[in-house]
Amino acid sequence: MLQTIKKIGVLTSGGDSPGMNAAIRSVVRTCAFHDIECYGIYRGYEGMIEGDFEKMDARSVKGIINKGGTILKSARSKKFRTKEGRAEAHKQLKKAGIDAFVVIGGDGSFTGAMIFNQEYNFPVMGIPGTIDNDIFGTTHTLGYDTALNTAVEAIDKIRDTASSHNRLFFIEVMGRDVGHIALNVGVGAGAEEILIPEEDLGLDRLLESLRRSKRSGKSSSIVVVAEGDKIGKNVFELADYVEENMTEYEVRVSVVGHMQRGGSPSCFDRVLASRMGVKAVESLIIGKSNYMVGLKNDVMDLTPFDQAVKGKSKINMELIRVSDIMTI
Amino acid sequence: MLQTIKKIGVLTSGGDSPGMNAAIRSVVRTCAFHDIECYGIYRGYEGMIEGDFEKMDARSVKGIINKGGTILKSARSKKFRTKEGRAEAHKQLKKAGIDAFVVIGGDGSFTGAMIFNQEYNFPVMGIPGTIDNDIFGTTHTLGYDTALNTAVEAIDKIRDTASSHNRLFFIEVMGRDVGHIALNVGVGAGAEEILIPEEDLGLDRLLESLRRSKRSGKSSSIVVVAEGDKIGKNVFELADYVEENMTEYEVRVSVVGHMQRGGSPSCFDRVLASRMGVKAVESLIIGKSNYMVGLKNDVMDLTPFDQAVKGKSKINMELIRVSDIMTI
Amino acid sequence: MLQTIKKIGVLTSGGDSPGMNAAIRSVVRTCAFHDIECYGIYRGYEGMIEGDFEKMDARSVKGIINKGGTILKSARSKKFRTKEGRAEAHKQLKKAGIDAFVVIGGDGSFTGAMIFNQEYNFPVMGIPGTIDNDIFGTTHTLGYDTALNTAVEAIDKIRDTASSHNRLFFIEVMGRDVGHIALNVGVGAGAEEILIPEEDLGLDRLLESLRRSKRSGKSSSIVVVAEGDKIGKNVFELADYVEENMTEYEVRVSVVGHMQRGGSPSCFDRVLASRMGVKAVESLIIGKSNYMVGLKNDVMDLTPFDQAVKGKSKINMELIRVSDIMTI
Amino acid sequence: MLQTIKKIGVLTSGGDSPGMNAAIRSVVRTCAFHDIECYGIYRGYEGMIEGDFEKMDARSVKGIINKGGTILKSARSKKFRTKEGRAEAHKQLKKAGIDAFVVIGGDGSFTGAMIFNQEYNFPVMGIPGTIDNDIFGTTHTLGYDTALNTAVEAIDKIRDTASSHNRLFFIEVMGRDVGHIALNVGVGAGAEEILIPEEDLGLDRLLESLRRSKRSGKSSSIVVVAEGDKIGKNVFELADYVEENMTEYEVRVSVVGHMQRGGSPSCFDRVLASRMGVKAVESLIIGKSNYMVGLKNDVMDLTPFDQAVKGKSKINMELIRVSDIMTI
Repeated sequence: MLQTIKKIGVLTSGGDSPGMNAAIRSVVRTCAFHDIECYGIYRGYEGMIEGDFEKMDARSVKGIINKGGTILKSARSKKFRTKEGRAEAHKQLKKAGIDAFVVIGGDGSFTGAMIFNQEYNFPVMGIPGTIDNDIFGTTHTLGYDTALNTAVEAIDKIRDTASSHNRLFFIEVMGRDVGHIALNVGVGAGAEEILIPEEDLGLDRLLESLRRSKRSGKSSSIVVVAEGDKIGKNVFELADYVEENMTEYEVRVSVVGHMQRGGSPSCFDRVLASRMGVKAVESLIIGKSNYMVGLKNDVMDLTPFDQAVKGKSKINMELIRVSDIMTI
Repeated sequence: MLQTIKKIGVLTSGGDSPGMNAAIRSVVRTCAFHDIECYGIYRGYEGMIEGDFEKMDARSVKGIINKGGTILKSARSKKFRTKEGRAEAHKQLKKAGIDAFVVIGGDGSFTGAMIFNQEYNFPVMGIPGTIDNDIFGTTHTLGYDTALNTAVEAIDKIRDTASSHNRLFFIEVMGRDVGHIALNVGVGAGAEEILIPEEDLGLDRLLESLRRSKRSGKSSSIVVVAEGDKIGKNVFELADYVEENMTEYEVRVSVVGHMQRGGSPSCFDRVLASRMGVKAVESLIIGKSNYMVGLKNDVMDLTPFDQAVKGKSKINMELIRVSDIMTI
Repeated sequence: MLQTIKKIGVLTSGGDSPGMNAAIRSVVRTCAFHDIECYGIYRGYEGMIEGDFEKMDARSVKGIINKGGTILKSARSKKFRTKEGRAEAHKQLKKAGIDAFVVIGGDGSFTGAMIFNQEYNFPVMGIPGTIDNDIFGTTHTLGYDTALNTAVEAIDKIRDTASSHNRLFFIEVMGRDVGHIALNVGVGAGAEEILIPEEDLGLDRLLESLRRSKRSGKSSSIVVVAEGDKIGKNVFELADYVEENMTEYEVRVSVVGHMQRGGSPSCFDRVLASRMGVKAVESLIIGKSNYMVGLKNDVMDLTPFDQAVKGKSKINMELIRVSDIMTI
Repeated sequence: MLQTIKKIGVLTSGGDSPGMNAAIRSVVRTCAFHDIECYGIYRGYEGMIEGDFEKMDARSVKGIINKGGTILKSARSKKFRTKEGRAEAHKQLKKAGIDAFVVIGGDGSFTGAMIFNQEYNFPVMGIPGTIDNDIFGTTHTLGYDTALNTAVEAIDKIRDTASSHNRLFFIEVMGRDVGHIALNVGVGAGAEEILIPEEDLGLDRLLESLRRSKRSGKSSSIVVVAEGDKIGKNVFELADYVEENMTEYEVRVSVVGHMQRGGSPSCFDRVLASRMGVKAVESLIIGKSNYMVGLKNDVMDLTPFDQAVKGKSKINMELIRVSDIMTI
């Protein structure tokens, strides 16, 4: 028999991303729509363990759809990785009468939810919130589209000064393990070269590419580098290496950095967040658990947590080819 | 036997949209990559008829990926709708040695290309460039994503002043025949009501909805209206009607207007434009003709022109439901 | 003997403008700095009459410096224009123990404060908050700089589409009685013609100017029109008149509208708001009353309310000349 | 007798800044207005020495008022610091028939112009173009206002993520010798602490201030640091030091960097550039030379080069006090 869900908790966990507030709003309002009580859980699993809950209604989330960050705060919780921590969390949830929760976060957060579900048969649902787009089971994670625009706008500004001075800029964007941001931002910003973790271009080929770019008449150049690129040098070492080996350019470095995690979400991310929140809550209502909500072929979809955390979000090889053609 | 393409023309036609320049750049550079000469055709089919062509190489399109508008200018051509006009256009293309062209525009432009192809067996390919997202065969038209962001950012600003004064705003966004922009912008901006051409909400239900919204504790409200909504009143008449029939709100109107057509394209639109340009040119190279390039399930796809112009881009019904839930 | 101020009220009144929240924050924190209690008064003088007050401390205003609108809401109050209304307001202030107030608003709001001060010898201070920059005694009103940027960015986008289609756009910006916004935005956006209330260009000269602009090789044109321009036609009538009398251009209209009142304030407006709040509170502390805080020669300054409301903020004639030269 | 100026050159020199293009446009159009020929000089004094000139008319500068960077490119020239270099530059100017030039740049560029003027009695005029606002004789340099907005918007985004994670961010903004940017951006972004070259706060006081801020209930904090602050540590060392000595916060660093030099200029900078270009050219026409154009009390003003380069642009002490009050 289907157990009726009467109280749903919602939390944000791990690194924050634009659209998390819009997702919270959607979870809260979908609960209100279905006459389910909703509780905000502060600071991710930390707050769950501490019982840091607050009842939220439709009005609690007004005016947040366009705000970056997360009103529930976020954190990484070491305690929740322990059996004791999860036991305490379960006690707190029971005490508050919470029957299920929706966690907005990345694969670490989903792993936690999955284990918690196994241990306590507690209904859980996940919404992929991370700018890195590194989660299997959705073509877009929450905040990814906004982060692309933030990075591209930053690089547009840098290109202004690069062009004025005929400089070569190495620009680091986020993405420790996957190159989605770097690849898309690189194509979008018209970068001459893009370095991503998935491909080892090699230093020689990089130099050759930059020389060819110079010969073809380009006076300034932008190289977009993912945090976790494979060449094995950080962006400053890379710049030094190139400067020593090429006299054609004056080299500069810029790290776009944490601003990529903030800012008002794009329309796409706000709509995606709204859709995901509805799907997550309504999945719990019909008895589903242990899934991540995702976007596939522009339709809402569910992926079991174990697949979501094991699977790998692959880079679009077509886009690598497009990038090569664009930089002729 | 496959006729080798040696010279490709590229033109922008109909209403302009952000990303057209990025698409021109992509067509030009893909030609360069494949050692095909590329000619820009100015002012759409008008310039084709007048032989207003200019040879373009990889450097001709530098620095335009992030610029709104179209460096080739755009126009609607009455002459090209006549047999004589098309005959003249064909003469000019032949004279310049152009073997094929890529037209960036909407369904009117594709209809023209299709007829021209039928009459002269001339290889043509289309790239959907319009902010309205009203073209069958692609989930996203070029410029649509940017227009959504532009409209949402405008409404965010208007909400600031709406909230300060407890006002009700009717905000018109673009979309004469389809409600894609209004629906997404409405959800993204957290609008209390969204009026689209596909649905006749009716004036009574609108009033009822606004009263319910007021009772639920909202002091200000935003109603997003598509240009072509079905209630049969323009946005000013609508506002007057509501003001006469509701004393709860002070009513104001704002028309976001033509700014939605301009501005620097979003990262998504720049990447999409780059992909579409490659696909269009490479399709011509392998002998395809009479197709529109599109995005389906995040993959580049081709749709025959006759389907693209006859088919209808349908509104996402799931999103209408999401909108209803969000405005509780 | 100087009466010690122990409780200060702060309100926003009249049309809202970006930077009002930053000014509220500054008033509240300056009070906290000097150990004075601070009360927010909601909805301008309406809330004063109704005793709608809330105690605020330094933490009450966190996270608002970059938000448009006003957390205290704003309103125009008819009651406060009556002796009875002001008597009730005074009663409420006394009841709450409020010794003085700072009103953030335009000249209507200052007139109210001045009369109230005369009737009850109640210490009052004003901060000029309006996008129109139409107040004597300050070179910049709060929100003006932000509104200029909002309007210029909107026009930049419109120019993209104007250029693509060789169109003539009439763009209305705010400014009912003064042309500050139109003149600066017109110069900043590179408008071909600027119509302001202070100057009657005349329809014939407008046509002549547009024709000259066309002859000089411009294919598109932007005319920026202040709401209250002197030609005596609204922007739509103006566009119709020009379209009938010039066949050279296709004419379009865009009204930038209420978005100019909202949005995150510019750095300039945030800093100005912070400075003005400090000056207003510290002026009350040292026994000043009945003044408006202003910026003169980049220094904080005080202007008596009667001068502020009677004086006229004059248009910069040098800028009109600059505009004429730029549009050659 | 006044020598008639028939040909004026214009160059951008040193670090670029937003608004340089708007200033070039103004110089070119003011020349056109007065029937003076205008030549663009590429890459600053380098291009002057190489005779890299191009004739420009009113149409050459269309569509650039809102573009960052400089279409004339910029450079620092070692050769121009030598007698031989300047002799060659003079030869090239004479050869092209150029009678006078306007240099848009910083104090290094003005020193060069001043020496050149002394050696060759050549009419020169300067426009202060630098984001640092470090030039005596003008309250605002070109690009400064835009850079403030760019930095503040970046910090707004970073604050979103700082608040979500209760983190302490050290954010470096530009300003090697002067703290104008840091001070204004710090106040505008609501920073808890601002470190500028003009003031040595000392590490102990910094720690004390951060602890007080924590105790007062702030969970996240922003410290804005000028590149050239006096504490004698770079922003990374500073962050390390604080992290070692305070366990209350998780510390992160972000360097806003070169994006502050680019981007579309604010309305203020576009208007300022337009005014300065007119003033510079018209000053040359009436026989003035060896001055920098500046803004003083909102009026165009001239400052002799020797004063401009020797004088010091002082930090606004009132603003330091405002900052202290705001961070209570």
